[in-house]
Amino acid sequence: MIIIGEKINGSIPRMAKAIAERDAEWVKEIAKKEADAGADFIDVCASLNEGELEAMKWLIDCVQEVTDVPIAVDSPSVHSCVEAMKFCNKPGLFNSVSGEGDKLDVGFKAISGTKWEVVALLCDDTGIPKTAADRLKVFDKVMAKAKEYDIAPNRIHIDPLIEMLCTADDGEGISMVIEVMTKIKEQYPTIHITGAVSNISFNLPKRKLVNQAFTVLAMNAGLDSAVFDPLNTDLQGMIFATEAMLGLDDLCCEYMSAYREGRFGEVK
Amino acid sequence: MIIIGEKINGSIPRMAKAIAERDAEWVKEIAKKEADAGADFIDVCASLNEGELEAMKWLIDCVQEVTDVPIAVDSPSVHSCVEAMKFCNKPGLFNSVSGEGDKLDVGFKAISGTKWEVVALLCDDTGIPKTAADRLKVFDKVMAKAKEYDIAPNRIHIDPLIEMLCTADDGEGISMVIEVMTKIKEQYPTIHITGAVSNISFNLPKRKLVNQAFTVLAMNAGLDSAVFDPLNTDLQGMIFATEAMLGLDDLCCEYMSAYREGRFGEVK
Repeated sequence: MIIIGEKINGSIPRMAKAIAERDAEWVKEIAKKEADAGADFIDVCASLNEGELEAMKWLIDCVQEVTDVPIAVDSPSVHSCVEAMKFCNKPGLFNSVSGEGDKLDVGFKAISGTKWEVVALLCDDTGIPKTAADRLKVFDKVMAKAKEYDIAPNRIHIDPLIEMLCTADDGEGISMVIEVMTKIKEQYPTIHITGAVSNISFNLPKRKLVNQAFTVLAMNAGLDSAVFDPLNTDLQGMIFATEAMLGLDDLCCEYMSAYREGRFGEVK
Repeated sequence: MIIIGEKINGSIPRMAKAIAERDAEWVKEIAKKEADAGADFIDVCASLNEGELEAMKWLIDCVQEVTDVPIAVDSPSVHSCVEAMKFCNKPGLFNSVSGEGDKLDVGFKAISGTKWEVVALLCDDTGIPKTAADRLKVFDKVMAKAKEYDIAPNRIHIDPLIEMLCTADDGEGISMVIEVMTKIKEQYPTIHITGAVSNISFNLPKRKLVNQAFTVLAMNAGLDSAVFDPLNTDLQGMIFATEAMLGLDDLCCEYMSAYREGRFGEVK
């Protein structure tokens, strides 16, 4: 599982305060904790309308002072992501492009010929498609553009867009997003499937339990990358357990190592 | 999910002590807690070589004093189960028969023409078959006998036998038992699939996480009945969440009701 640590995000009130006050110690502490907890990328999102790039540079500098874990440059603006790439010491994750406007061209052009990876959301100018077939049409568009810019599938993390469970009706549950994941993975076995798993539990009580159950079901359908809090050690334990059950960890060696390293099971 | 409460079992040291000392208050307290936590059956297993039937009668009497939840009469001896049925005020669950010896004939004959349900383990005189195909052969034998005794599939809980994950090798994970579950459910949509979910985590640390992840994956393959501790409220929460994700709970109504009733999320 590729873990994209979600905690350096200006939409989280405590982090917004740290960004506003340029409280470098807070940011560094969170970055260090995410790195120690096994994050593969540390997502950096300023979540600001004004001064976004300056804040991103400051955040990225903070993170890079305490860890070598690559950065996920995260902004709703593809142009901000392109600029933020320049602040990074090493290739990271471009978060994100989508079928909207010229985002695919701008983002893929920026990472073409580099080692950067990229998150592609399956939405377009019509919004978030309601059916699996329509999301897969956006996917086809993403892959056609990726080919044009010579971006190999294993550098692409497809986010099929996880929506809240509490409004699912007519026996649908999560079947649509699971179908999208399954079909994508069948077509491109080396592609990554990612998502913000906590979206699933919006408006429900005991969100962690819902997030955990969803993560297990999504992994079964091909999810191998996810945006979440790596300090949620129960979720990490369940991810290692699920990998063993899906046949990706013979004799539970990885599960046991992760446990011994304190990745889950013990408060560090 | 049909919950078979596992706590009244002489293989649990504290319960063995209560049985030895005929500590009725302890047994009643546990039975009451299991019932309040939503158990559909309360499993009663004396786990004794000598005096088993007498102990089962005493245990069943204790349980029936405090709750109307039906009993699962549980013994490795099919004859003890037949005798224990007589101690029950209402039809419950016969736990269990298997392909060994004359167990199918003895057990099915006893419940034929009644409203008792039955657990059937997919093992036979050769032991626990190693391949899915061989377990399915035992299944075919079970179903042929069930037809002979006029036991409808919806009264049968098939236990495909969940084995410990820590010895799974060669990328197998849980694929074999998942295949058995899937094929059985395809053939008989109304049959129940059950199992002792905690077997999966034997010899691993943080067993609860492994049990939870397994339960979610097994439910995805058809598990709709299980032997576990209903006081494990996190597992119950994940089960309700998984049912919603699998499209069995529109708008998360059941999840929300169960939460409000304190089935998970809050210590009662």
